Amino acid sequence: MDFQSRCTIRQYTKQDVDEQLLNWMLETACRASNTGNMQTYSVIVTRDKAQKEALAPAHFNQPMVTEAPVVLTFCADYNRFCHWCDARQAKHGYDNFQSFIGAAIDTCLFAQTFANIAEKEGLGLCYLGTTTYNAGDIIRVLDLPKRVVPITTVTLGYPAEMPELQDRLPLDAIVHHEHYTDFTPQDIDRLYAEKEALPSSRQFIAENGKQTLAQVFTDVRYTKEACELFSEKFLQVLREQLFM
Amino acid sequence: MDFQSRCTIRQYTKQDVDEQLLNWMLETACRASNTGNMQTYSVIVTRDKAQKEALAPAHFNQPMVTEAPVVLTFCADYNRFCHWCDARQAKHGYDNFQSFIGAAIDTCLFAQTFANIAEKEGLGLCYLGTTTYNAGDIIRVLDLPKRVVPITTVTLGYPAEMPELQDRLPLDAIVHHEHYTDFTPQDIDRLYAEKEALPSSRQFIAENGKQTLAQVFTDVRYTKEACELFSEKFLQVLREQLFM
Repeated sequence: MDFQSRCTIRQYTKQDVDEQLLNWMLETACRASNTGNMQTYSVIVTRDKAQKEALAPAHFNQPMVTEAPVVLTFCADYNRFCHWCDARQAKHGYDNFQSFIGAAIDTCLFAQTFANIAEKEGLGLCYLGTTTYNAGDIIRVLDLPKRVVPITTVTLGYPAEMPELQDRLPLDAIVHHEHYTDFTPQDIDRLYAEKEALPSSRQFIAENGKQTLAQVFTDVRYTKEACELFSEKFLQVLREQLFM
Repeated sequence: MDFQSRCTIRQYTKQDVDEQLLNWMLETACRASNTGNMQTYSVIVTRDKAQKEALAPAHFNQPMVTEAPVVLTFCADYNRFCHWCDARQAKHGYDNFQSFIGAAIDTCLFAQTFANIAEKEGLGLCYLGTTTYNAGDIIRVLDLPKRVVPITTVTLGYPAEMPELQDRLPLDAIVHHEHYTDFTPQDIDRLYAEKEALPSSRQFIAENGKQTLAQVFTDVRYTKEACELFSEKFLQVLREQLFM
């Protein structure tokens, strides 16, 4: 898949992902930009069936976790760097939020470069946003030490589906020039018109008994209660892992 | 540049970046994975000289900010989505940390896909980690509303330099299988041996009057005092922008 035609892939063939290919892709992804060349990230490769089953509940049992040949958990990681500092008479001061955010950004640049490479190689993948919801459970399953926090998860395999290209907002919903130009109600109507007119959006509204597509997001998919609960849980994880 | 040979580019020719090309690259980057297809990110394009000069201090006056033809500030953005909810009788509950983290991750996947596309098109770029250090200053220069937080900045142009490939740690410093395997002092010695043996590392140590390369990081480049100061500042920005 190229950049323009890529789609999230949730169904995979039985074909395994070759170990050498995976390592080559991960090694190449390490060429992505990172802060101070500290490489404050790591990735846990899960191929073992029992480990996938142990991870699955943290991802609300989305079937990709157990069905994909490979599950990759990308982590912000100051553990290795601090070990190095300890071994070299260097007093590190990275137990704080800015260090976490920097490491989390670098983790994402690494993960996304990996994703771009993997898709170019004909693989398909799905990101799991559940990673930051239940990071504490993932830490326990993968034995992550202090100063390591899972940021995102990618399920990986060869595509067994060819989904249609998903809609995206018009570019002027995303891009601002020189200053941020806030949106009028008319702007919002125009920018969301195509999305709201999609048959799938109308179906979403009907299935969930809502009046508008936005209500499907606020009342069903990403509710205030869930967002607040998972905020508390993730902040607790950051404290336990020494980043706050 | 391909994935394997890419390097950060800090010096640019006088050649401008064509507006249509830039828009095509940004539009294509929007195909990157994102949570719930909410696209909770935005990008501010800075070409104006006065605006670059206004941004520069937030980035500690690194010369790329004023010398690059284009500066892109990538932001986590729930402002547009919440406007949509408001206009559609949907009560949003995204004023919390989990929403911020999800938006920040999606912003990075968008930014890094853009970076990969731009480098494939022959452009060169540099990420500025200073973005989260002085996010409040950037918010003021770019007029970012509540629920918008700058995450990373990319300076962009045509390369006027060909830097050598930077070192990276051996892959087994980054990759763990099934469980995280913590590092022994012997592991650390082995994994950092190549980096520590580089002439540039020895030069760094000498220039800074330190005993070890790790001390250059802890005592000069990323000190505890700076990390803690910028942690407090960024947490304050998250509170002001309604994400905490």
